[in-house]
Amino acid sequence: MAKLLHFPVDPFCRRIRVALGEYDCGVEVIEERPWENRASFVALSPAGILPVFIDDDGFAAIGIEAVSEYLDETRGSEATTLVGVTAAERAETRRLVAWFDGKFHAEVSGPVLTEKVIRRFVPREVGGGAPDMARVRRGLAMVREHLDFIGDLAEQRNWLAGERLSAADLAAAAHLSALDYLGDVPWQENASAKAWYQRIKCRPSFRPLLADHIRGMPPPRLYADLDF
Amino acid sequence: MAKLLHFPVDPFCRRIRVALGEYDCGVEVIEERPWENRASFVALSPAGILPVFIDDDGFAAIGIEAVSEYLDETRGSEATTLVGVTAAERAETRRLVAWFDGKFHAEVSGPVLTEKVIRRFVPREVGGGAPDMARVRRGLAMVREHLDFIGDLAEQRNWLAGERLSAADLAAAAHLSALDYLGDVPWQENASAKAWYQRIKCRPSFRPLLADHIRGMPPPRLYADLDF
Repeated sequence: MAKLLHFPVDPFCRRIRVALGEYDCGVEVIEERPWENRASFVALSPAGILPVFIDDDGFAAIGIEAVSEYLDETRGSEATTLVGVTAAERAETRRLVAWFDGKFHAEVSGPVLTEKVIRRFVPREVGGGAPDMARVRRGLAMVREHLDFIGDLAEQRNWLAGERLSAADLAAAAHLSALDYLGDVPWQENASAKAWYQRIKCRPSFRPLLADHIRGMPPPRLYADLDF
Repeated sequence: MAKLLHFPVDPFCRRIRVALGEYDCGVEVIEERPWENRASFVALSPAGILPVFIDDDGFAAIGIEAVSEYLDETRGSEATTLVGVTAAERAETRRLVAWFDGKFHAEVSGPVLTEKVIRRFVPREVGGGAPDMARVRRGLAMVREHLDFIGDLAEQRNWLAGERLSAADLAAAAHLSALDYLGDVPWQENASAKAWYQRIKCRPSFRPLLADHIRGMPPPRLYADLDF
């Protein structure tokens, strides 16, 4: 059986967990904490990059770009593709995925999750310790602008990249859901973005994320509530 | 005729210029300075992201991820693909591209090019001015480690991702060539990496990069020399 190595709050791993649900692809999901340098993980992913998808034949795809496209190529069909069918659709999906995985992660989800979650787990000598709350505030100050970006797209289109659900929706929702676990998404700021997230949150593929529970950091009450 | 909007020293744009040569795809190449906010550019790419590839039919692919895959899908063939033929090859290419466009850019080429080049061009009110040389030094201190990574791959494989030339080679070479324009690559540190770069540098597709000339910033003598 194929395996996914992931860390629950990591937005890239979260996107792949949802994608696996969309493709209806059963895999063994294994939690990995890169900073623990587990020997068999380091052998696969020396730089500690997640997610890692290990296929039935032992081939390992490493990192979000490789894993997401690999799954679409090996598990997707014209009906279930999350990249798109035409070259233009596919380009639009990838433009938006890069926006969320690049810009949103650099500005918001990366700093906030590093400070509020990762620092609690990693040893002090590799960056563990108290969160830099000024950095958290700078990140969270930019959430609203990104919600507006999502809201505008959601008003113009059926899904973010166009007519069909795509990796762009999954990427945006994965980053936001990780912040949502911390109670850090001001959904009231943009009704269109909230309505779009509600549609994603109701999908069966999203359920594993809503069942996440990080030890010592329970999510807020509305995290798993479909009527948030 | 299709158009590429690019900025000469930008590593992402450089990769696409080389890719167009590999696909033998003639396009009109237009220099774009995102900070000048040219109206028709902002209309296409509101966030100022380059490269932008405008196809014959007017469709615009925006950003390196979208453009590189779009070109492979519309201009590549099984013989000329830069992503790879099998799903495993394609995953390996994308893993390495993400390494260079993500990690190498964040650690080295992004900071160095921003400080030494972009700051000379952009107005002071949006970040122009004197370079932060401490940031440049921190970036350049990491080049050697990346050359070792490239050298190791080049010793094990024909090209970085495997048997065939791929976007991984083009990405690595694009980032390094932008630094090389500044004379900032210590090629003597790794003979295997240098030999690999020499093979790329000799390709006809690389010639447009070697002809680059930024006003007021001429490249060092060895930049365009195939025997560097």
